[in-house]
Formats: sequence, C-alpha cells, structure tokens
Amino acid sequence: MTQVSDAARAYSRANSDKFLDELKAMLRIPSLSGDPAHAGDVRRMAEWLAEHMAGLGLDQVEVMETAGHPVVYGQWLGAGPDKPTVLVYGHYDVVPAELADGWDSDPFEPLVRDGKIYARGATDDKGQLFVHVKALESYLQTSGAAPVNLKFLIEGEEEVSSPNLKPFIVEHLELLQADVAVISDTSMRTIEEPAILHSLRGMTYIEVEVRGPRDDLHSGLWGGAVHNPALALSQILARMFNDDNSIAVPGFYDDVVPLTEAEREMIAKTDLSEAQYKASTGVPAVWGDAAYNIRERIAARPTLDVNGLWSGWSGPGPKTIVPAKAGCKLSCRLVGNQDPHKIFQQLKAYIESLAPPTVTVEVRLLTTGKPALFPFDSPAMQAAERAYVAGWGAQPIFTRGGGSIPVVADIADLMGIPVVLMGFGLADDGLHSPNERFSLEMFQRGIETTIVYLEELANVIRNT
Amino acid sequence: MTQVSDAARAYSRANSDKFLDELKAMLRIPSLSGDPAHAGDVRRMAEWLAEHMAGLGLDQVEVMETAGHPVVYGQWLGAGPDKPTVLVYGHYDVVPAELADGWDSDPFEPLVRDGKIYARGATDDKGQLFVHVKALESYLQTSGAAPVNLKFLIEGEEEVSSPNLKPFIVEHLELLQADVAVISDTSMRTIEEPAILHSLRGMTYIEVEVRGPRDDLHSGLWGGAVHNPALALSQILARMFNDDNSIAVPGFYDDVVPLTEAEREMIAKTDLSEAQYKASTGVPAVWGDAAYNIRERIAARPTLDVNGLWSGWSGPGPKTIVPAKAGCKLSCRLVGNQDPHKIFQQLKAYIESLAPPTVTVEVRLLTTGKPALFPFDSPAMQAAERAYVAGWGAQPIFTRGGGSIPVVADIADLMGIPVVLMGFGLADDGLHSPNERFSLEMFQRGIETTIVYLEELANVIRNT
Repeated sequence: MTQVSDAARAYSRANSDKFLDELKAMLRIPSLSGDPAHAGDVRRMAEWLAEHMAGLGLDQVEVMETAGHPVVYGQWLGAGPDKPTVLVYGHYDVVPAELADGWDSDPFEPLVRDGKIYARGATDDKGQLFVHVKALESYLQTSGAAPVNLKFLIEGEEEVSSPNLKPFIVEHLELLQADVAVISDTSMRTIEEPAILHSLRGMTYIEVEVRGPRDDLHSGLWGGAVHNPALALSQILARMFNDDNSIAVPGFYDDVVPLTEAEREMIAKTDLSEAQYKASTGVPAVWGDAAYNIRERIAARPTLDVNGLWSGWSGPGPKTIVPAKAGCKLSCRLVGNQDPHKIFQQLKAYIESLAPPTVTVEVRLLTTGKPALFPFDSPAMQAAERAYVAGWGAQPIFTRGGGSIPVVADIADLMGIPVVLMGFGLADDGLHSPNERFSLEMFQRGIETTIVYLEELANVIRNT
Repeated sequence: MTQVSDAARAYSRANSDKFLDELKAMLRIPSLSGDPAHAGDVRRMAEWLAEHMAGLGLDQVEVMETAGHPVVYGQWLGAGPDKPTVLVYGHYDVVPAELADGWDSDPFEPLVRDGKIYARGATDDKGQLFVHVKALESYLQTSGAAPVNLKFLIEGEEEVSSPNLKPFIVEHLELLQADVAVISDTSMRTIEEPAILHSLRGMTYIEVEVRGPRDDLHSGLWGGAVHNPALALSQILARMFNDDNSIAVPGFYDDVVPLTEAEREMIAKTDLSEAQYKASTGVPAVWGDAAYNIRERIAARPTLDVNGLWSGWSGPGPKTIVPAKAGCKLSCRLVGNQDPHKIFQQLKAYIESLAPPTVTVEVRLLTTGKPALFPFDSPAMQAAERAYVAGWGAQPIFTRGGGSIPVVADIADLMGIPVVLMGFGLADDGLHSPNERFSLEMFQRGIETTIVYLEELANVIRNT
C-alpha cells in the first residue's frame, strides 16, 4: 500500500455516513426504464447523477441523449496521458417494484436495517456503480488525483436489455477509448469469498399471445366448443421441456460450447448443495436437467423460464368467462456460442408448430443479449485478484455468472478491451425481487478494493 | 286478449321512455357482488330497487339482510287468496367490468345505440328482472290490479353463486310461498325464436395456486434449478383434457345422465353450424369433444374452462424473474346428475396427483351450484307457451340452457313448485363480456309477454 491509497481508504471510511445519505437520495428516484409512465423519473435520475459527479471535480460530465433513456458520461483525465484509462460501466435504471409485491417497506424509500440498505436498485446497480464514484472522490479529496484516468459510462436501459447502448458506443468510440473496462453489477456467494466473473449469459426474451374468441365469452353460453386460450397456452408451454427437463426446442443446444472436464471440476468446487439451494430460494425440491450440477445449471447452461403469464380474470371471486386471449413472457438465458436471434427463430418456429388451428398464436421478440466469456489470465484480471487480497482481505475466485449484462459482449467486441467483472453484491441480495438490499459492509469493502485496484492497474497496464 | 291485459300492454308501450330512464338509473349503480370494494354500491342498488317498487304500490317492500348482500323482497297480493301466486326471482348484482377490458363506452354509464342499451347488467339481469316490475306496474296503473298475486325475490349474490340464498329461502318459506316461480335471466338465439329453458347447468368453481420459491427470483442467478411455477401450472392444466378433448379427471362423467336419442334429435334441430359459432364468437375454428354436436357441447354436456391465469410480470417490457407462484381460476359447468361437491373432490384429487414434488399446489373451492332439469308438459310451462304466441307473436321452443342459475334447483327442491325460465336476452348480448347490451325491443316484448302470461296463469293454475 502507498500513502496515497491509504489516505483515500481512510477518507472513504471517515465519510461513510455521507456516502450512505447520497446513496439514499439516488435510491429514492424510481427510475424504472421498462415503464413509460416513469420516463420522467429516469431522466431525473440521470440528471441527479450527472450533477453529483460534476460536484466531485470531474473534468467533464454530460447527460447524453440516445433514442431511449439518456447515458450519463463523466471523465477525469488528470492522471495524464502516460497513465492507463479505466472505463467504468454501470446502470442507473431499475426493474419495477411495488409494496404489494411483498416488500416490507416502500421500495423507493430506502431503509437501513441490520447493516443492509433496503430499496429497489440498492444492489442492482445504484449501490454498486456508486462504489466507483466514491472511490474516485476518495482519491480526489485526499491526494487530489487518482492513479489512473477514469471514464464513466452509466446507462439507463440495462433492465430493458440496453437497446440503444451499442449504437451509442459505436458513435462515441473515441470519447470512450480506454485500456480496460470495469463493471460492478454482479454478486458473490459470501463476503469471505469475493468472486470475479469471467462469463455472463446472454438472453432471448419473447412474448407469446394466444387469441381465441374476439371478446371474453360467457362460459355457460359458449363454453365447450371454443378452445380456451389459457388452456391452449398451457398446452404449448407444457411442451417446451422434455421429460428429462431439457429444453425441447429443436436445435436449441446446437451451438452450446461443451464444458471441459477441467472447468467442470473448477465449477464443482463452488457447487451449491441441494440443501443450500432450497434454503436460499425456499423451493420444496430442486429441479432441472440432472445431467448437470446445480451451479452449472444456474450459470453455465442455457435456460428457459416463464417470466409472466396472464389470461382472463385474476381479481377476487369467480368470473365465469372463457377468456378472449392468454399471454406469457418467456426468456432464455444463453451461453457461448448461442446466438440470441437464431434462438428467437427456433423458439418462434417451434411455438408456431405447436399452435393448433383453433386459436391464433403470435410470438414477439422483446429483447436479446449476447453471452460473453473472458480468459482470466490477463494483466487486468490478475491485478484485480491482487486488489481483492489487499483491499478486501480475501483471495477471490473466478466464476461464471448466470446473469446477463448485454453491454459486456458489446464493449469487448467493439472496443477490443478486456472487461473485468468485480461484483460487490451478495447472492441473496434479492435483486429483481421484493426487499432488494445491499450490505453496507460490501459497499465499504467495494470502495476500498476499487481504490487499491486503480493503483494496481496503474502499475500493470500500459496506456494505449 | 281481455281489455285488462290490452290496457296494460298499451300503458307499457306509451311509457317506454320512462321505463328506459328508470332502467338507466339502475344500470348506473356498479353493484359488483364479487368485489368487496363495491359492497356499498351493492347495497345502494338494493335500496334503489326497494324504493322504486314501493313507489309502484306494492303491499310490502323490504331490503332483507343475509350473511352477505341483502335480498330485495316485494309483494302485491291484491288479486286475492283465490288467485294463484307467482314468485319472480331475479338478481340486481353484476360481474366486474372496466373500460380497459374492451368496452366502447363506460360500462356504468348506459348508452343507447341502434335500439340497444349498452351497460354492465343490461341483460344480466337488471333489464330482465325489470320486465316483471314494469309488467306489474302496467296492470296497477291501468285496471288497478294484476290477475295474479306477485312476490319478488331479487337477490344480490347471483354472480358469486348465491351463497346465502338457500338459507334465506329455508328461513322464509312461508313468506315466499307461491304456486309457480318465473325467472328471466336467460336468452334466446333470435327475436323470432323465443325460447323457454327446461334445463340449466350447475357449477364447480375452483382456484389453483402453485408455489415455488418464497419470493420471485432473478432468473439469471437462480433459474435452471427451480421448477418454474408458471411452467408447473401449465403442465398440470395441459393434463386436464384427453387427446379427444374429453375431460381427463377420473370419474368426471360417472354421474352424467346420457342424452336420449329423442332429445338429441330435438337438440339437433336447434344446433349451431360451425360457421354460425365462428361468426358469433370470432374463433378461427371450433373445438371440443367431437362425439357431441355444438349445441350439446355448450348446453347439454359438462365442461371445464380456465377462467383466469396469472403469474409473475404482465406489465410492459421484460422482467427477468422466476415467479414465486402461479395461479388459475377453473370452473366446470355440470349437468344432471353431477354433484358439484363430488366433482370438486375429483378435481382436487386429480390436480394433487399431478403436482410434482418441486412445487406446492393448493386447490380451493370458490363456489358450487346444482344443475336443474324440468319437464315441459306442466300447466305453467304450457301457459308460458301460449303467452309467447299471444304476447311475443311467435311459437316458443323448449331448450336446454348452458348457463347456471344456482337458485333454480334450490327453489324447485325447497318450495316444491315448477320454475319457468322465460329468458328475454339474446344469445349475442355479450353478458359477462365487454359491451354487454339489451335490445329495447326485447325489453318491450318481454313486458307484454309477461303481462299476457300473468293472465294465462290466472286461468290454469289453482291457488294452493
């Protein structure tokens, strides 16, 4: 450790209450990117963040327009041209949350309980992106300079699969130019076992609509001679899996790169037991393709899940109708080298082949994201490993992540730089669920590890 | 025709605008019996109706309490003890309706277009029950007396399967004593072919809930090793039918009285063609058990329909969760001699037998109703036939109704009197659907037919 990073770490500890208050302000803004009714809140969030970063002394901060929600761009290039540049990616948007979903407190009125802050976006990704902002602040407020140049690319559409980010990167390649990208938008199993991800899954997300009669029908007057759309949809969904719980869509597994025996051995070391998985999720028994262990199924193998289902009457009491239509949201997590658009075509063709002549079936693509896979012997990855040892106080493990961050593959492909996924969340933070939370200890350790990491990077990465 | 009924008919024609205004006032009250939030509206509807009937000169009108929504009771016994007494049953409650469901205008702001009045409850059953109120008014305002005594039993819980009506009838058997019951809560195919129903279907209505994880899970972090509850529910529903579209629940058909060849021949005469059924409903093709024709399937055979389905996220955009639970509403229309409670036990046992160990499945009974079947050679039925010829201007047919009016079997069983189902709706009135409507011509013809029917009944039924 140098005095410079020590001073920055001390500053971050001394200012933890201030940091927490700032994080709370950010969490109070319901920046739901998927709901047009919240577009104003999304913009307010972008403006709040830009104003906050400008106040810390960055060279340039800008709310930059896209075809959708804006990007917040910020840079501090004070380390000078002979030092490497780090691109920090994060997202300020969140998925929906309502008290009625099962939250113990208002999802947009952050509350600290037992060392955790509860709010939608606490861990995904407001709390985690803020780690990097606060690491830079800690340097600027102590030695007046960070050991590397920093660029921030904070988008507002990650939760709707970043439809406008790839064009944004293409258009601003020069502005964004960097030597390494760092992203904190993932999690580790326990605080003692920090994880660096070297793989993320991609996604194909579709919506299926089954239409029968033109209006809801009275089931007593018309029922018996119409194919109930909710039944027809159920019959289609029941055929998405084979009896062994593998996915029945023809060609689905064709492009999956088989796991090597060596990687399977590495994964086995961090496998979840059935008891652990049941305790974490609350399910009565595990499920899935028994040819793979639990960790493989949730991180290294492709999946298919029904994310939503609707038809007819779901309010209180009975309503004796044959619903006019039924629909579902359905998504696949993909692994290398599955192509999201090819998977969409396969899903569409299969579902259409299952559609009986008694109903009309429409399959619509909502979003896609490419899977990503990185080697973990690069200088940037090795520097991260050392930063955890010094900043976190524990040896990190390299793992595959089951989630999807669409931009990861795009950054790697378009900018030709490595992406280091330093996730500071915990696996049971409940992201996308009621009572999402972020541990304040993870927040603090994340800031200190990042402070050390910037110093480590300054030593090993040459500027381009 | 006598001068007495002629005068009453003339009055009803001269006052059609007034009758329509009164009907509109009734339709403006959103008396949704299934939604606790509308309990106040349900009571307001009962009070409106009682006040209106009292204003017409009935001997006694009362809003009578039950364990649920109240009954409106009214009587006019001015015909004297040597004349028969007719019990009119109807219901002032309605099923839910929202503009967003596909209504062209506010479901609780009645609108007349092309000779029809559009509003929730227009045909089911406010418009139809009002026919009897207006028939009595027409007699009282002209000759000062009706040819028979009348009792009105208007309930507020028909749409939630009348949980408190049977106890009410048992408790007030003496008050309700009558020689025949008349109910207008059904429909005919066309205005030229009035129908008298001699059979109604019963019902078993259940709710099924499938629970997996304790909260919604992030599909990227946990998906692949949990049995998706929406998938599990779909897999269960897909097994409710055999490949020939007969119902797969073991024992389901055991107590069904087979249709006789004679009745099948009678039904065949009023069968719907596939083209007619498609035109009326808008489905691309008909569906069902091919061993029976369409009319049999929708009126004389038992059915199973999914009335509602829900799980996870159904709002705009993608949400990448594994839902914690999934649910559905499911109901069976039953025919003689199926027992609704036995059917519930069969459904429950079958669904539980299909439930995999990876999820928890709960089957709850919502409501039941017994099927009913009447001979059509009774004096009251024959009088109705003559009333249609004179009052409507067409020979009626006797048909089976596919719907359920739970009280019909109860009235017949408990009071030992015949029930005559003189439905003044049209098959395409859209009851329980968006844009429910009632033809003003049907309203007028219904009133006049009822006026004649009361006179016919006075001639053929002896007082008890």
